[in-house]
Amino acid sequence: MKPSNRDKLLAQGMRVVHELGYSGASVRDIARAADVPLSSFTSHFASKEAYCLEILELYYLGTAALIGRTLRNDALAPLQRLRDYFDRHENVIEANGVENGCLMGNFSVESAAHSETIRLRLTAMFADIESAIAYALDAAVAAGELAPIADSAGLAAYLFASFQGAILRAKVEHNPVHLQRYKELLFSRILT
Amino acid sequence: MKPSNRDKLLAQGMRVVHELGYSGASVRDIARAADVPLSSFTSHFASKEAYCLEILELYYLGTAALIGRTLRNDALAPLQRLRDYFDRHENVIEANGVENGCLMGNFSVESAAHSETIRLRLTAMFADIESAIAYALDAAVAAGELAPIADSAGLAAYLFASFQGAILRAKVEHNPVHLQRYKELLFSRILT
Repeated sequence: MKPSNRDKLLAQGMRVVHELGYSGASVRDIARAADVPLSSFTSHFASKEAYCLEILELYYLGTAALIGRTLRNDALAPLQRLRDYFDRHENVIEANGVENGCLMGNFSVESAAHSETIRLRLTAMFADIESAIAYALDAAVAAGELAPIADSAGLAAYLFASFQGAILRAKVEHNPVHLQRYKELLFSRILT
Repeated sequence: MKPSNRDKLLAQGMRVVHELGYSGASVRDIARAADVPLSSFTSHFASKEAYCLEILELYYLGTAALIGRTLRNDALAPLQRLRDYFDRHENVIEANGVENGCLMGNFSVESAAHSETIRLRLTAMFADIESAIAYALDAAVAAGELAPIADSAGLAAYLFASFQGAILRAKVEHNPVHLQRYKELLFSRILT
């Protein structure tokens, strides 16, 4: 079955929104990237906000799957889950072009001022990720891999925020060294 | 002397760009915020890019002054400089509205894809800040406040990136807890 115009708009358009941003990518840019008529966009999506909410959900599917394979994967040793999560997350960022950053991080800056719906959805997604990091931290303490942590939820939120910061710096410098340094310090200085 | 239209465009317009973003704030929004005719913008600035570069420089003046009073202030004990820097930086973020984030962080996402000039200027500004953080870290080691640090420039870059990440999370959640947690973990878990 050939991909529908709707599928093309989501898949190809996500790329252009990731590169040019929520405000920077016009509906015309999105339709052009998908090689469909502009009228196809308006017949499939009520607004750019509605469209961007859908690509955000699509993007997050990958994150949720990664969490299942790593942070919440009880078959792996807990610290290994954390290593795998950040390694593979870095791979995804680099595969998408380190200069494009993370779509969720980009939307945090670009969409929060324009769409309360997207802001609240991002908040819930971040809470899910942080909760999965805390789950792996608690498992690492239970397994004796880490000393007891007073506030694992707080530490998890810090670790996730810091990784988003590293992605932001890598994006502006076009340089993945920030992601590599993050992981190095995480395991040499913070989770010891 | 009354402020010129140029002054008003820079001061009032910075606010609207900080709130709505590089792409989100139109030249019309900027002129309206400054209460000057649209033609005044075009007579004073060659482009939105040129204008945004000027407000970025203005914004950075505050950061450079803060660095002089804190991180590079040899009259203060080194760890105290770091505390003061992050405390006052947090105060500035909160005074501007935590939901608006940091103009430099916002431009990292919004402008890097649109302006190579702004991207390179941001990169240089971040290098200056990181260098000042490394200066304070090195001073803390020399004063015996911290154990020797293998790569103080790398740690400084990590600390700055992590703070930008905390600002980003605070922005999307409209919640300064991320900034407070950053400082707490910085001094309880990382710089110990």
